[in-house]
Amino acid sequence: MLSQMPPEGESALLTDLYQLTMMQAYFDAGMHGMAVFEFFVRKLPPARNFLVAAGLDQALEYLETLRISPAELEWLGASGRFDPSFLDWLSGLHFDGDVDALPEGTVFFADEPLLRVVAPLPVAQLVESRLINLLQYPTMVASKAVRCVLAAPGRTLVDFGMRRAHGAEAALLSARASHLAGFDGTATVLAGLRWDIPLFGTMAHSFIQAHDDELAAFEHFARSHPQANTLLIDTYDTEAAAARLPALARRLQAQGIAVQAVRIDSGDLGAHAHRVRAILDAGGLPGVRIFVSGNLDEDRIDELLASGAPIDGFGVGTRMNTVADQPWLDCAYKLQEYAGHARRKRSEGKATWPGRKQVFRRYGAHGIACEDVLATLDEPCEGTALLQPAMRGGRRLDTSSGRAQLVEARQRLKDQLATLPPHLLDRAASPEGYPVRISKGLQTLTAAIDAGSALPDCNRGGGPP
Amino acid sequence: MLSQMPPEGESALLTDLYQLTMMQAYFDAGMHGMAVFEFFVRKLPPARNFLVAAGLDQALEYLETLRISPAELEWLGASGRFDPSFLDWLSGLHFDGDVDALPEGTVFFADEPLLRVVAPLPVAQLVESRLINLLQYPTMVASKAVRCVLAAPGRTLVDFGMRRAHGAEAALLSARASHLAGFDGTATVLAGLRWDIPLFGTMAHSFIQAHDDELAAFEHFARSHPQANTLLIDTYDTEAAAARLPALARRLQAQGIAVQAVRIDSGDLGAHAHRVRAILDAGGLPGVRIFVSGNLDEDRIDELLASGAPIDGFGVGTRMNTVADQPWLDCAYKLQEYAGHARRKRSEGKATWPGRKQVFRRYGAHGIACEDVLATLDEPCEGTALLQPAMRGGRRLDTSSGRAQLVEARQRLKDQLATLPPHLLDRAASPEGYPVRISKGLQTLTAAIDAGSALPDCNRGGGPP
Repeated sequence: MLSQMPPEGESALLTDLYQLTMMQAYFDAGMHGMAVFEFFVRKLPPARNFLVAAGLDQALEYLETLRISPAELEWLGASGRFDPSFLDWLSGLHFDGDVDALPEGTVFFADEPLLRVVAPLPVAQLVESRLINLLQYPTMVASKAVRCVLAAPGRTLVDFGMRRAHGAEAALLSARASHLAGFDGTATVLAGLRWDIPLFGTMAHSFIQAHDDELAAFEHFARSHPQANTLLIDTYDTEAAAARLPALARRLQAQGIAVQAVRIDSGDLGAHAHRVRAILDAGGLPGVRIFVSGNLDEDRIDELLASGAPIDGFGVGTRMNTVADQPWLDCAYKLQEYAGHARRKRSEGKATWPGRKQVFRRYGAHGIACEDVLATLDEPCEGTALLQPAMRGGRRLDTSSGRAQLVEARQRLKDQLATLPPHLLDRAASPEGYPVRISKGLQTLTAAIDAGSALPDCNRGGGPP
Repeated sequence: MLSQMPPEGESALLTDLYQLTMMQAYFDAGMHGMAVFEFFVRKLPPARNFLVAAGLDQALEYLETLRISPAELEWLGASGRFDPSFLDWLSGLHFDGDVDALPEGTVFFADEPLLRVVAPLPVAQLVESRLINLLQYPTMVASKAVRCVLAAPGRTLVDFGMRRAHGAEAALLSARASHLAGFDGTATVLAGLRWDIPLFGTMAHSFIQAHDDELAAFEHFARSHPQANTLLIDTYDTEAAAARLPALARRLQAQGIAVQAVRIDSGDLGAHAHRVRAILDAGGLPGVRIFVSGNLDEDRIDELLASGAPIDGFGVGTRMNTVADQPWLDCAYKLQEYAGHARRKRSEGKATWPGRKQVFRRYGAHGIACEDVLATLDEPCEGTALLQPAMRGGRRLDTSSGRAQLVEARQRLKDQLATLPPHLLDRAASPEGYPVRISKGLQTLTAAIDAGSALPDCNRGGGPP
């Protein structure tokens, strides 16, 4: 039976059990009314002045193809948890709702909806778990990777972290999210295949070790890859390896093969880079670039460059792909409206802003963003509306290729970074932060619900029925 | 073309580019000799006294089914990076090597190989990235989850973290690894389908919010799920919700429906649990269990139970599934031998113990483990050999079901925990740690390589050719 199952990432059963048991209860009570859920981040992590929206392409793909397979249905039936009539209804499962969202690459802040789903309650409920799973991680990676990009202007940045990412999907999604954030490329081959992300690669210590002599390994690799070779020089003694390169490079040069770069992966990377640069320059190899790797993140990159280390490129892995300093976001997908009435969760420390919302960004002098306003959807408000229609009736509005969407998102982020107040671009936490104002309309709606006049009608003007 | 691609987790291209470029170079030079790679953890994370091996089932599955699809091959060819003769050879790619490994659920320490691959160099090289990707994460989760298990004796523990895990595969693998470590079950439906892991579920705040009245929501859910209902009582006011339960429970009881448990997900969980317990007891509901959730980990669980909070079960999510305090391991898959000669990487801070190795565990009084010995494979050594044959000639030796292997691993860990020195079971870091001794044979081999008498012949006695 397992062989008839869809891949895990496409399975409607990649969800929490309670989504299905709640669906059964909704089904029993005929609660198929329109629900509005919004996904947002409650609080920026301590070391982030802003976040970068990512993962929407995958989230929409998930919604558009949501189905339950016969084999899965059979398994659910055998579990004895669900009624046959509910399972029968479930066999026709698909998502035909609307989605509005921040386009990928949009800079956003706490409380601002990244995505709004409007769909019949049972389906909008079911997709909660996987939507969070698909949006949180890429957003975290893009928001971390952009900090590396800001720390390394003019340097080459490559995602090296596939092996330590948490599983296959994380490996792929982090290659994509880091490229979106401005990385030049990735080492992950499948990410190149999926999204045409430029691929980079060097060599492993095992390659050196498999040869009896280090220089023979270098020569062997360069002959196999005359166009693209980065030689790993730290397996035994970094400077000793560098010192042997000029002679080899001259020999290869005579045969039309150019040594392009070296990689240093251990020890004091800055000190090694200085010494290796001097050795290469003295040996007539000023064009051979120096690439470093090994537990790098934005702080370490900044430290190295601030010390003047002559480094041309960085392989950034583990700490970015696992978002090591902040591997989860305080984020939620919450019911904001059901059957035309705004709803609000009031749990301690976890209260939400009710109703359908829009984010307006306002710009001041020199086109620099000065304020976001979180408002109800139908409230007149100045500024640029950030949430855009992404899906209507279960169909994606942007049907361009995955590559095209990624390129566009990358450019969007670049453009937006140029409009941010400079203090947000510092790696250090900005004490002043960025103002997100709650509109008068949203304050009024919230107060009305809390006062228990409650469950106000949401369908004033612009909102769908 | 994408539609003809295998799922990402099964793709031979879920690897780093350098594996393929090194393979091309090995192919060019006819370097198809037998390579021995070992995967190990260099250093225990600060807050772990031991690690728990997990992920082997998935790693072996990956190796056994390793193929390159025609569509992938075509894409590689179009990239222009590789020679046609190499691609032709690659079209027949499969793994026919041997694997020895610590069975899942084995407790292990730094420097001890978790897995050894013996295979022709190009293939043993290719699989590095995905093997690390498949072994690191489950091992981290199991090693974190077992700390929760040790902190909550006699309580129900459920994996709640699918949504915040890093992608689809992480969601599934963390459900499996936490169950291996002793969790009672998971909320992730697909993990129940895959490995028959017991499923648990409650209800979401959105369920309550979708109803005009909280009590109506409780009643509605309990009627739909008379056998399994855990009511979420913190959407508006935890104690107020609890106070309304006894009357509802009596009414439902009369119709044969028993309210089984409540869940508290916000605020001071210990204080709420105390108050809710008192309310339920006073209302004649001593049998209704209290379940809590919300940013829990082993430390918070311990705190709650130490304070005497009357909590029957914990939903543990985010911090376990993202291994929040330590989301990566300092681990490596290193070449230890090629073509019969031991190899050693000597990079600063990253030197390895060379050759094929075995771990022997020795037991003292009362069957408590007192020392591990890291030895060469053919060295006579007292103690229980921990690495076991897992695959020969590319075929798995244990062909029992995924469920059977998981059950066995769960029992193995339970048995091993009973043999550990008690100080290792503390949550606090053990200052004395656990002794892993390097055998005389391994020291001699290492010294020989470092002295440059080097590349000693490994095939003395027991080692394969």
